Amino acid sequence: MRGSLDDTICAVATPVGEGGVGIVRLSGPDVLRIAGVVVRLRSGRLLGAAATHSLLLADVVPPASMTIHEMDSQASPMRFLDEALVVYMKGPRSFTGEDVVEIQSHGGGLILSLICQACVEAGARLAEPGEFTKRAFLNGRVDLSQAEAVLDTVRARSAASLHVAQRQLRGALAREVESIRTALLGLLAHVEAGIDFVEEDISFVTGEELRRTIQDAILMIRRLSRSFRMGKVLREGARVVILGRPNVGKSSLLNQLLREDRAIVTATPGTTRDVIEESIDLEGVRIHLVDTAGLRETEDPVELEGIRRTKLAQQEADLALVVLDGSQALTDEDRQVMDAVRERPRIIVVNKGDLSPVVRVEELASHSLICPVSAATGAGLDRLRTELRGQLMSGGGDAAEAVIVTNVRHQAALQRAAQAANQALESLGQGAAVELIADDLRATAEALGEITGTITTDEILERVFAEFCIGK
Amino acid sequence: MRGSLDDTICAVATPVGEGGVGIVRLSGPDVLRIAGVVVRLRSGRLLGAAATHSLLLADVVPPASMTIHEMDSQASPMRFLDEALVVYMKGPRSFTGEDVVEIQSHGGGLILSLICQACVEAGARLAEPGEFTKRAFLNGRVDLSQAEAVLDTVRARSAASLHVAQRQLRGALAREVESIRTALLGLLAHVEAGIDFVEEDISFVTGEELRRTIQDAILMIRRLSRSFRMGKVLREGARVVILGRPNVGKSSLLNQLLREDRAIVTATPGTTRDVIEESIDLEGVRIHLVDTAGLRETEDPVELEGIRRTKLAQQEADLALVVLDGSQALTDEDRQVMDAVRERPRIIVVNKGDLSPVVRVEELASHSLICPVSAATGAGLDRLRTELRGQLMSGGGDAAEAVIVTNVRHQAALQRAAQAANQALESLGQGAAVELIADDLRATAEALGEITGTITTDEILERVFAEFCIGK
Repeated sequence: MRGSLDDTICAVATPVGEGGVGIVRLSGPDVLRIAGVVVRLRSGRLLGAAATHSLLLADVVPPASMTIHEMDSQASPMRFLDEALVVYMKGPRSFTGEDVVEIQSHGGGLILSLICQACVEAGARLAEPGEFTKRAFLNGRVDLSQAEAVLDTVRARSAASLHVAQRQLRGALAREVESIRTALLGLLAHVEAGIDFVEEDISFVTGEELRRTIQDAILMIRRLSRSFRMGKVLREGARVVILGRPNVGKSSLLNQLLREDRAIVTATPGTTRDVIEESIDLEGVRIHLVDTAGLRETEDPVELEGIRRTKLAQQEADLALVVLDGSQALTDEDRQVMDAVRERPRIIVVNKGDLSPVVRVEELASHSLICPVSAATGAGLDRLRTELRGQLMSGGGDAAEAVIVTNVRHQAALQRAAQAANQALESLGQGAAVELIADDLRATAEALGEITGTITTDEILERVFAEFCIGK
Repeated sequence: MRGSLDDTICAVATPVGEGGVGIVRLSGPDVLRIAGVVVRLRSGRLLGAAATHSLLLADVVPPASMTIHEMDSQASPMRFLDEALVVYMKGPRSFTGEDVVEIQSHGGGLILSLICQACVEAGARLAEPGEFTKRAFLNGRVDLSQAEAVLDTVRARSAASLHVAQRQLRGALAREVESIRTALLGLLAHVEAGIDFVEEDISFVTGEELRRTIQDAILMIRRLSRSFRMGKVLREGARVVILGRPNVGKSSLLNQLLREDRAIVTATPGTTRDVIEESIDLEGVRIHLVDTAGLRETEDPVELEGIRRTKLAQQEADLALVVLDGSQALTDEDRQVMDAVRERPRIIVVNKGDLSPVVRVEELASHSLICPVSAATGAGLDRLRTELRGQLMSGGGDAAEAVIVTNVRHQAALQRAAQAANQALESLGQGAAVELIADDLRATAEALGEITGTITTDEILERVFAEFCIGK
């Protein structure tokens, strides 16, 4: 079962809170009958007789069976919920592809909830999280990657992530994935035809054609998959941890990075006394900066706890900024900090560049990215910002143009697709039976189909739409 | 100056947050030109050429001059903000009475803010708080009391307060106030005609007619004014403080009152260790219950601070529940608590009714409202709830039918009107000059006119609309 479409659902479609306007959306076969109960057009006409997509002034009234509060009495029940604009959108010209009615009323929490209650009393069912978007998918209005992009669009916190979500919403990822899948399915048809006629020893596709098409597919899948690191940063922002022994200027560096963006800085209340977290917008990319306790040998239990938390922050980070004091010789503690992140994306920040330099660059030669700065004067900060953004954005190609994978579900499917395609290539090289190769090609196409929803299971749908809120 | 109407304003009209749908509203003479810049109808037509009040599928695009993020380049600027439904509502058939365009897009904070920015870039001005409603008032779509009811409707937390707000929104208060004002203005015309022709000694209205009309007006003003205590409770909820010496069962009583309404209880985090506040919905009326530290003689500084806070809570309360232990003789401390609230609305709750009674009713005879309960078994709770609601709702008459004053601004104007009308009556009794009586009648009518906005000043408008949020 892929979710029932034969009942009529309703929910508040606007954000929760107080505003001038709020919208209750109804979708399903029964919207006109339900609207007939809860809505009275001022014109006296019936909504179904009005033009589709027209906003019409109406009173929202509760069904006779609905008791709203104790002041209700036979003499004077509360027979009026709000004045509203009501619109009927005849399917399939609607978000869900079904008949839709929207009641656009005043935007208060209570009033919207009462209007929903009235719709339920009249026969609607409260929508589950993401159910409007799910119906849009089930009715073929959007593919699964577009449905997921609705959520990304609503949640976008930076212009860059919004841009990527909007491209996905318009079907850019789906088109790219489908083009790979279509090529593989074409190949598969040939291979299977070859299997059917194997007795006659007719080959419909040469081994060389097979190899080249599979290799092309792998390259395209890998390009998409490589964009994921950048996509994840775009979608969720990047965690950047500032490391270093005490008094090398970590907090000054944090303040410098924050100051340049003061207007759009938001402070997250520190979850611990020792790890301070702030967010900046670095040219459209949201970066969570984590300032940590200085790392050094200590016996003090409070400081040890701080260091434990620092190490945790370091493991969770997408990139580390290791801060050194350039005016002093490197210490063992400095070297320990650098060693701890040797295997991870990092930038070595040599601070106190305004004082006479002591740290020699050759000592740091094994670290490719070294940025001299002065957190006191701000010198070198521009380059640091450029390097920081460059490191986090690597792998995405031309971000404005390329299709970028942002969703962990898509990335997992791409990895499975790449694995199956590699398996096909390997079998081909080993002269394996065509049946085996066909199986691998089928697995590749299926993994790709999961991204757009050509292939779905209840489990996939449930996981995708559970992330949504009610009303989407 | 009453606020300029000659520019075009824009704001997000839906609540802030994440939702399926959000609305950016534009209002003013220039909406079609601005929409021409930021909106491209999928039909290829112009919005102004489309039918009014029709939702049309469109792309929202930023003006060429607007840079959105660093990924923008000449080659590939971000030339698409969102897919949206766009509607043109030709004035005066709109909320503000002006030409209005609404862009109904995905409901994310960033996307709505970018759409607003695009409108500003195209020539709109960001609306001030309440400015849409203010324009509706200035264009004669609603009177001032209706404008204020928009805010009450959005903020309503209980069905009863919503009901009162909706009646006010539909003009019930305005009609009642205007009927009093019109009667007084008619009278004033006669009185002034008498003044004009005073040389000829022609009297256009008898002293008896004057007296009767003014008395009627005073009665009606007083009835409205008396409803304010109830109205305030309906609009804001009531604060009910639970008082009593330690161990008489205050917290058990609180728990009993909460338990009966567990589904709609919300806990407010205690602001102090000693005063716990919880809210219940008592048949449509929101009640904030404040449990206090026991009141007793003490030297302990922590306990003294608790008692200081108890006394503060008691002063701010609309009603006090004084809890006694019915199984013990009254103590001096009990008497002190009762004395402290002797002048205020209160109910004496005699607890532990399940144990053998010791407190004698005659000892409490000076207190009119006595409710025996057992917080342990729940006996007597129903009556307590009825009495509690009755006390808080007194003065409003039949709440479902009567016009109820909920706004402190209206109440102040009513009090001024009553004062001036009384003054007129007094002058009349003393045989004062008709000019003096006419002045008092004019002052009465003006005070009433402030409620509906027939009489306004910049100061009144500023105060009224400053309470609104942006987008209303």
